[in-house]
Amino acid sequence: MSRRQVVETIRVVEARRPEAIGREVCIRGWVRTRRDSKAGLSFIEVNDGSCLGNLQVLAPASLPNYETVVKHLHTGASIRALGVIQASPAKGQATELLAQQVELLGDADPNTYPLQKKNHTYEFLRTIAHLRPRTNTFGAVTRLRHRVSLSIHQFFHENGFYYIHTPIITSSDCEGAGALFRVTTLDLEHLPRQQGRVDYTQDFFGKPTYLTVSGQLQAEAYACALGKVYTFGPTFRAENSNTTRHLAEFWMVEPEMAFYELADNMNLAEAFLKRIIADALRDCAEDMQFFQERVDPHLLPRLQHVLETPFQRISYTEAVDILSRAGRVWEFPIAWGKDLQSEHERYLAEEHFRAPVILYDYPRTIKPFYMKVNDDGRTVRAMDVLVPGVGEIIGGSQREDRYEVLEERLQEQGLDREAYRWYLDLRRYGSVPHSGFGLGLERTLLFLTGLTNIRDVIPFPRYPGHAEY
Amino acid sequence: MSRRQVVETIRVVEARRPEAIGREVCIRGWVRTRRDSKAGLSFIEVNDGSCLGNLQVLAPASLPNYETVVKHLHTGASIRALGVIQASPAKGQATELLAQQVELLGDADPNTYPLQKKNHTYEFLRTIAHLRPRTNTFGAVTRLRHRVSLSIHQFFHENGFYYIHTPIITSSDCEGAGALFRVTTLDLEHLPRQQGRVDYTQDFFGKPTYLTVSGQLQAEAYACALGKVYTFGPTFRAENSNTTRHLAEFWMVEPEMAFYELADNMNLAEAFLKRIIADALRDCAEDMQFFQERVDPHLLPRLQHVLETPFQRISYTEAVDILSRAGRVWEFPIAWGKDLQSEHERYLAEEHFRAPVILYDYPRTIKPFYMKVNDDGRTVRAMDVLVPGVGEIIGGSQREDRYEVLEERLQEQGLDREAYRWYLDLRRYGSVPHSGFGLGLERTLLFLTGLTNIRDVIPFPRYPGHAEY
Repeated sequence: MSRRQVVETIRVVEARRPEAIGREVCIRGWVRTRRDSKAGLSFIEVNDGSCLGNLQVLAPASLPNYETVVKHLHTGASIRALGVIQASPAKGQATELLAQQVELLGDADPNTYPLQKKNHTYEFLRTIAHLRPRTNTFGAVTRLRHRVSLSIHQFFHENGFYYIHTPIITSSDCEGAGALFRVTTLDLEHLPRQQGRVDYTQDFFGKPTYLTVSGQLQAEAYACALGKVYTFGPTFRAENSNTTRHLAEFWMVEPEMAFYELADNMNLAEAFLKRIIADALRDCAEDMQFFQERVDPHLLPRLQHVLETPFQRISYTEAVDILSRAGRVWEFPIAWGKDLQSEHERYLAEEHFRAPVILYDYPRTIKPFYMKVNDDGRTVRAMDVLVPGVGEIIGGSQREDRYEVLEERLQEQGLDREAYRWYLDLRRYGSVPHSGFGLGLERTLLFLTGLTNIRDVIPFPRYPGHAEY
Repeated sequence: MSRRQVVETIRVVEARRPEAIGREVCIRGWVRTRRDSKAGLSFIEVNDGSCLGNLQVLAPASLPNYETVVKHLHTGASIRALGVIQASPAKGQATELLAQQVELLGDADPNTYPLQKKNHTYEFLRTIAHLRPRTNTFGAVTRLRHRVSLSIHQFFHENGFYYIHTPIITSSDCEGAGALFRVTTLDLEHLPRQQGRVDYTQDFFGKPTYLTVSGQLQAEAYACALGKVYTFGPTFRAENSNTTRHLAEFWMVEPEMAFYELADNMNLAEAFLKRIIADALRDCAEDMQFFQERVDPHLLPRLQHVLETPFQRISYTEAVDILSRAGRVWEFPIAWGKDLQSEHERYLAEEHFRAPVILYDYPRTIKPFYMKVNDDGRTVRAMDVLVPGVGEIIGGSQREDRYEVLEERLQEQGLDREAYRWYLDLRRYGSVPHSGFGLGLERTLLFLTGLTNIRDVIPFPRYPGHAEY
């Protein structure tokens, strides 16, 4: 015991580097596999989550607990091993640990532990979401998700933005777009009623409240005071859609910039997306290589291409024109004024331009009230960024900054002017041109990993019928 | 117009630096005040949120729109000004802008704009939460909140942690501690019933669900796979407490570390808190000076003291002993086995030790089931960090890593074993010693600003009866 205190504990990621050779160290982690050699030693693959790769621990039969402990180490058991890092003759690893001491911390019964050496389906792993981070795929997703989140904060900080925590519980509904989760402390078994209807004055907030679908409107209040801000937090959709592309709870980043017009917004979106890709390729190289090899063989070339290609910018009207003349039969027919569908977006990005595309100036009738109306009166300053492989990944707009026009748009879309009184105030006092967009973190992770089910890029996915853990 | 395109637009924070002198620039922002001099020019104080200080814009009467626009600029109006930065003879500013052009973007009617030059009470400003970021205090709070959030991410990233997004909607209740918000899509006017009771199988998730009170348990699943992780996200309490210290929705950071014992946990908490303070003092110097001058004259010395002082570490039992012999009459009498109250915590930190204090080893009966039971059987490896001025700011523990003991503790506290089956699995398979703690972002901001009402350090506070915006 006294010995262990002077030996430095390092992580597997450090122990795998050639610089570690010759050091006496302690490592701790979980056994991935154990193989006993007839030469009188065991090879234990240990992972501690610090990187994808394992550290190979050589446990000689001379260890006092070799027969009693080492030869019974199972997949999933936690151990502490002390020894010297040496150069490894094996392929794919620069180093290994020659153990002088191996200690079992916690066992994992091979008869019940669900993660055995064999490959498991994503479906099965979803049923053990508390254990799946112990697999290569979910370890890699976790490290990448961390890296992307950090890039988001770094990018905005370096560009003079402030991180704003917009509220999760809200009494306003950003887009007038249904599908909200209600938040309440009322006793549902004994609802208070007033004239036959539920009496929300007795609810916690004294009125009906919901989970937010976007922090945009509140972020605008801060942009119109502090210049450039962003939100990054959970958002919610109560849509009953059981697809591989939808979650009831997901993370979204929403920058909002005073004095930005639509072209500035496009420039920012392009620089932002490229920064995220570049950071992932550089700092998660081992994990990205794993996705390339195990998930999607076209992944790295596709990301490299997006990184190096200027985003094509075309108006919605031009896009409709291209799609009409594409000589295809569309499942959803093309016509000016109709929203584009996934098949159209993917055709533009993957076949026509073979590049990321920014579509802008959409018909006013298919976009929310807060988007700035163009001089033509028919279109608004919306923009959607489409990328090969995923389709729409960013949606944004220049915001309507004219009080009267905004008021008219609220009315046009049947929204309650009183509920948006504070939002109108931002145009009443010191109004400025401003713009912003939203990027879904999970969509971005699908794009970066090649995984196809959004439930596999968030730790504990929430979707209809599923809120375990 | 063509001219403006070649002139660089910079922010006020840059324009205020001596290095900017001589540059021809464009700045954009909001008018704080305007003063007309008889010498034939106007002084316009412009703020754009990039820093606390304003840029003084000198608008000479020779401007073509001097009489029609400049002399009518009101507090709150947004403008664009183009000119040359020159050295300023005025006190408290190195530079000023001699305007060649001043353009009004959006006016603010002085008869209705609520933020006039005079000081406003915090109470009043809470009623205009969408406009209060335009004030000095809330601008400073916003910049500091951003800096602290970034320090959190940087500190953990640099120390090998991964950021985990634990779920907001959950079917499990972390501490068995009531006061939850329910999340539902059921139609409250027409609740489905089964045998007289509400039928939650028809709810969105097929069972009752709530807003999370902590991401700790889920973070443990990731720590027990990836080593060191942290969550940073919104958490919720449906307590009907209308105090200056409680919010229904607030942000919490919760690190969780495999292989950390209680002493490691204390070391991390101390280093973490000191890092946050150091970053704030260094990077938000102007804003911190403002809080010192306008909010709390003892603020900076207190923070400096906490930064430089090793945190005192004493057991709960020792603390009870000190408090019993303090020779005071306590509002809440002291006895071993009772929880400490704010008066006790503040006495220890502010009077007895005059230093931050980490209390540890609390009676098992007053702490949650997941804390590791000490060998004495009476105490658990809990720790609370107390700081002068605020009291408890961090709470944490080493977690119970023994399957049987954890099972027993669940039973002891009357919790449903089945609901914690997945949590027990973490001890069943490859269990490791692990620890973690929680830090409330808003409590930290009270500590860093000297502000006394927690509703003033979050953009849109949620508390009983209030969920506007």
